[in-house]
Amino acid sequence: MHTPFLALDDAITTRNVESMATHARDRGLDLRPHAKTHKMIELGNRQIDSGAIGLTVATIGEAEVFSAAGVDDLFIAYPLWLTPETASLLRQISDRARLRVGVGSIDGAQQLARLATDTPLSAMIELDSGHHRSGIDPHEAGTVADVLADGGIEVIGVFTFPGHSYAPGSPSSAAADEASTLAAGSEALRSAGCEPIVRSGGSTPSAAFTDADVTTEIRPGVYVFNDAQQVELGTCGLADVALTAYSTVVQRDGNRAIADSGSKILGADRPSWTTGFGRVIEDPDARIVALSEHHATIEFSSTAPPPGTIIHTVPNHVCTAVNLVDRVAITTDGEITGWWDVAARGRF
Amino acid sequence: MHTPFLALDDAITTRNVESMATHARDRGLDLRPHAKTHKMIELGNRQIDSGAIGLTVATIGEAEVFSAAGVDDLFIAYPLWLTPETASLLRQISDRARLRVGVGSIDGAQQLARLATDTPLSAMIELDSGHHRSGIDPHEAGTVADVLADGGIEVIGVFTFPGHSYAPGSPSSAAADEASTLAAGSEALRSAGCEPIVRSGGSTPSAAFTDADVTTEIRPGVYVFNDAQQVELGTCGLADVALTAYSTVVQRDGNRAIADSGSKILGADRPSWTTGFGRVIEDPDARIVALSEHHATIEFSSTAPPPGTIIHTVPNHVCTAVNLVDRVAITTDGEITGWWDVAARGRF
Repeated sequence: MHTPFLALDDAITTRNVESMATHARDRGLDLRPHAKTHKMIELGNRQIDSGAIGLTVATIGEAEVFSAAGVDDLFIAYPLWLTPETASLLRQISDRARLRVGVGSIDGAQQLARLATDTPLSAMIELDSGHHRSGIDPHEAGTVADVLADGGIEVIGVFTFPGHSYAPGSPSSAAADEASTLAAGSEALRSAGCEPIVRSGGSTPSAAFTDADVTTEIRPGVYVFNDAQQVELGTCGLADVALTAYSTVVQRDGNRAIADSGSKILGADRPSWTTGFGRVIEDPDARIVALSEHHATIEFSSTAPPPGTIIHTVPNHVCTAVNLVDRVAITTDGEITGWWDVAARGRF
Repeated sequence: MHTPFLALDDAITTRNVESMATHARDRGLDLRPHAKTHKMIELGNRQIDSGAIGLTVATIGEAEVFSAAGVDDLFIAYPLWLTPETASLLRQISDRARLRVGVGSIDGAQQLARLATDTPLSAMIELDSGHHRSGIDPHEAGTVADVLADGGIEVIGVFTFPGHSYAPGSPSSAAADEASTLAAGSEALRSAGCEPIVRSGGSTPSAAFTDADVTTEIRPGVYVFNDAQQVELGTCGLADVALTAYSTVVQRDGNRAIADSGSKILGADRPSWTTGFGRVIEDPDARIVALSEHHATIEFSSTAPPPGTIIHTVPNHVCTAVNLVDRVAITTDGEITGWWDVAARGRF
């Protein structure tokens, strides 16, 4: 076996896809999964077949790939700064898909109005619900809506990413912040004479706590595969992790071993609250204590497996791992049954 | 402009390539640059044209790509664990290139002897000089050499990666550790009746301090482009950074801005001693204080540039950034003059 490579377990993936679809249906929420996690046509189609109303993407390039593959309802959940070149790409995408884009500032609203009035699309205003990355104070949403409306851009609602759900103990409070922010932004839009039809939130950790009285739509991404971060946040167990890096132990010394799944296949994400650079399916107490491009240094809970052993390592953040490879193996009962292209890998 | 994308400045790259070639020549050292940094045929050829004796690579897949492109002297500086499948790939590579591989344990030596005796290659024994990742105690090198010799594998020397040079103030002491380790390993080999013809070390931070009395060859990689880590280690200045991510400011608030060069183009490497997730060419005092896949949160030294401004962001670790893209723009005086494929991207 020529390792490392990424593989997804078909049964676990299917279970994860169905489970989130059921959760959304039971709560009366629209599900628009974030496809940046998987970037695969086959998985986008599975999500839609199981009830998703469309897909979320992060970039124009991802929207190009999914719309070309027949996905006809896309939300670019990013505060785009358009140029004539990228505006032209949006126009082409809008021929193939119902298109929404994110707007996160008055400047961004003005630029969208300057360059995209001839493109059939609608705008969603991004709100900051506590992650303090992009997005505006919800009380300012009316001003942005006014700029868009004056510029001839339809505004259909508000969205937020409660990224501060990514810390132990935070998912439920982040979901509460999300709800109060979406409510305040919606109120601001109504005051500006604009009905916030879509109130979109949701991340994988916070999805279980979504306030369905306020929120109409959720956009979780990671749930389709899960990863070490989700395990450590308590969102799932190791048995729910669908995607792993098949790795070979190349050296060992007592409990410590080097495997060939470095940051070039796992990604280098390492938030301070995580217990290491990733996990190992075969030993729940093992930790990846150091990571360079081609070396994962693993502390096992007892004597490390001998060189040549194939182990399944779990990335901290599955989105960045998937973006490192051109294709992912599909496995059933541990046997490789096919490969799927990561069609939107590296697309901006 | 459709950002983000990676671009290399042709003049700075050329200067970096020439500068290290001159340094090695002046010190009487063979230069075998690590091609995992750039993964580009054009740059490998430039390095060889300027005097490199061959290239170093990290994986069999990289050796396949560079040997197929005509590079005829390759060192896979990794403690490979061979399987019948990968041994067969080595045989194919050895038809096209003089091939060396790393061996870092008795187990690895036995496996190489089992699977590669019909392949013309030579072995280099990996020593731990203080980075404590892979490699053996130099005093044990004789035992590994014996196993290889008994198995019919030619041993030509020892190598080490002084990775502990990657900390402020450490490059010169790491170079001293490298020298004493290579000397001890060489002595152990001689005691086993094996002449260590090649004594290979070197990383970009430690290259200036290489002990040319002990070392015969250096394998720096990053120097070809440099990056934020090298700037912060004092190895180079911002003016020596050849590769940047062209990024668009999409939002700002006072001194703070969001640019579209997230970890999907810069990579997520963030050693504890770095001052942030990367730097900005236009403002040496700016820091990337947070990074998610599509958002670089930047604190500028004064009012942030307005949305729509193109800025040049510098990754912490250029090797992982390059591995994220299929091609890199070539610029001369800021104008794009072409694109080079990252031919060995994602190859294991």
